[in-house]
Amino acid sequence: MDDQSLAQLVEQLQDRCLQRGVRIATAESCTGGLIAKLITDVAGSSGYYAGGVVSYSNEIKTRMLAVPEEQLASHGAVSAQVARSMAVGAVHRMGVDFAVAVTGVSGPGGGPPAKPVGLTYVAVADAVGVEVRRFAWSGDRSANREATARAAIALLLERVSAGVESGAR
Amino acid sequence: MDDQSLAQLVEQLQDRCLQRGVRIATAESCTGGLIAKLITDVAGSSGYYAGGVVSYSNEIKTRMLAVPEEQLASHGAVSAQVARSMAVGAVHRMGVDFAVAVTGVSGPGGGPPAKPVGLTYVAVADAVGVEVRRFAWSGDRSANREATARAAIALLLERVSAGVESGAR
Repeated sequence: MDDQSLAQLVEQLQDRCLQRGVRIATAESCTGGLIAKLITDVAGSSGYYAGGVVSYSNEIKTRMLAVPEEQLASHGAVSAQVARSMAVGAVHRMGVDFAVAVTGVSGPGGGPPAKPVGLTYVAVADAVGVEVRRFAWSGDRSANREATARAAIALLLERVSAGVESGAR
Repeated sequence: MDDQSLAQLVEQLQDRCLQRGVRIATAESCTGGLIAKLITDVAGSSGYYAGGVVSYSNEIKTRMLAVPEEQLASHGAVSAQVARSMAVGAVHRMGVDFAVAVTGVSGPGGGPPAKPVGLTYVAVADAVGVEVRRFAWSGDRSANREATARAAIALLLERVSAGVESGAR
């Protein structure tokens, strides 16, 4: 994983959000705070980053992000449905314009056969909707976490930029 | 900062918490997710780490950790009082046995003269009380964040170990 370009991606996100005047939040399971850490590595991040939740356990997903318990029970924590609920819950609970949520199996321990190590969902929600993407990483724990962080920041940048274009029409 | 020994300190914390059967949470301002990231770098961390809040803005401190607005107004976000409230709020909101909270001025931008770059408060709360420590780091943004993370994990390890000793009496 190329740290230099990941840092550059975060700087692009910061520039875009400051330019647009939007506030963002994070909701992280498998990355466990890595995305928040990467965002706040950059001085000036408090200008657009409100904060985040590291919802490592299912209970924190329910308590802090309002993910429905029945959704966790029926679809599992690593699912498109839960990624979506985490992102939407983060927007509402933290009162921001955009929130990114990630949930995945980082390893080394895997889930059931249908949820192998590397399976990851990334979602970005805003006031009008939510977009979810599915990834299947093939690295070790550390590589999978970094790949997820990169995908999350890229999708966030894309959605904030789309907002800019639509706002300019 | 010696990364090797910081990782070892986190592993000691994990061993101690698993041994004791306690669940912990984090509440981070100036470290912006770094403590959560360090904890979850270690496989098996889900056995004791419930999750955390990155309360980068004052609004997130109030919304997600129940820090009183009047306390933020009268003492400022970087104060012993707010560190204490963040830790206590994290224990209650996330339903854990121990929570560590950090708030500080990482730099490069400073606060008022009374709140110089490097001023940091670390608090650990459990069911019976809360301990707060004050630090004055002299490094750059990155060094100050790592020093704070180390101090937070060390205080958490100390408090969880004290709980073990007291439980054994």
